Amino acid sequence: QHANHLQTHRDSVSEKLQETELRNQDLEGQLRELEQRLESSQLEQEDFRKSLRSLLELLDGKIFELTELRDSLAKLIEDS
Amino acid sequence: QHANHLQTHRDSVSEKLQETELRNQDLEGQLRELEQRLESSQLEQEDFRKSLRSLLELLDGKIFELTELRDSLAKLIEDS
Amino acid sequence: QHANHLQTHRDSVSEKLQETELRNQDLEGQLRELEQRLESSQLEQEDFRKSLRSLLELLDGKIFELTELRDSLAKLIEDS
Amino acid sequence: QHANHLQTHRDSVSEKLQETELRNQDLEGQLRELEQRLESSQLEQEDFRKSLRSLLELLDGKIFELTELRDSLAKLIEDS
Repeated sequence: QHANHLQTHRDSVSEKLQETELRNQDLEGQLRELEQRLESSQLEQEDFRKSLRSLLELLDGKIFELTELRDSLAKLIEDS
Repeated sequence: QHANHLQTHRDSVSEKLQETELRNQDLEGQLRELEQRLESSQLEQEDFRKSLRSLLELLDGKIFELTELRDSLAKLIEDS
Repeated sequence: QHANHLQTHRDSVSEKLQETELRNQDLEGQLRELEQRLESSQLEQEDFRKSLRSLLELLDGKIFELTELRDSLAKLIEDS
Repeated sequence: QHANHLQTHRDSVSEKLQETELRNQDLEGQLRELEQRLESSQLEQEDFRKSLRSLLELLDGKIFELTELRDSLAKLIEDS
């Protein structure tokens, strides 16, 4: 009877262990997925920043060219 | 002896269950942390986009004002 | 007969003088007109230059504001 | 005596005519000079306007390029 009782208990614990292990696999799967999303989000952000830096350089160029144009206008007015 | 054997097995399974549950708690902690990082990263990105949109509106204003200045210059040349 | 001849000559010279004086008045009128046109043309040019200088100052302001916008964008990218 | 008187008068009129003709030449010289100044001033103004029109076209180009840059920024923000 004692042995019977132990057997029942063992089955219940084994079942619990199995459930917990399944839950574990599920959690690890979620973690991997989230890590991949975070990583790909960071890569996208880095690409975004690179594109913004390219735009910033273009803007620098435009400001420089407007300044040259401004200097030409100033010279033209003074020489006229 | 059989009961003894069962007892030993039960202890081992219980131990494994305990380890797996600890691992579970750890994984759940990691998941929560990652979810928070992802969420806060998304909030930062949204703030970033908002700031960029403000700059875009400012740029629109500057382009509009440069166009007005261009029209004044064109009018000045034609009227002179 | 000699006196007669002199009289005729005198008339002819007087007539020539009168014509030349009329031509003089005409030339002086043309000169005054031209001087006024030159002066008003110079005043217009000065007004034109003043308007261009105002536009130049506006352009300076726009370039300055674009540079501020550029700096905001640079800061935003670096802080993101 | 009458002839003498006429002779004196004739001399005086001839002298006046000579002076008036000299004045005439002087005025015609001034007129030519002023006409040349006005013409060269108009040519300079035309050159000035041409240079300003070139600057205006450059400014058009810069505004166009800033607008393209603005559109790139808008697209970048929307796609991010």
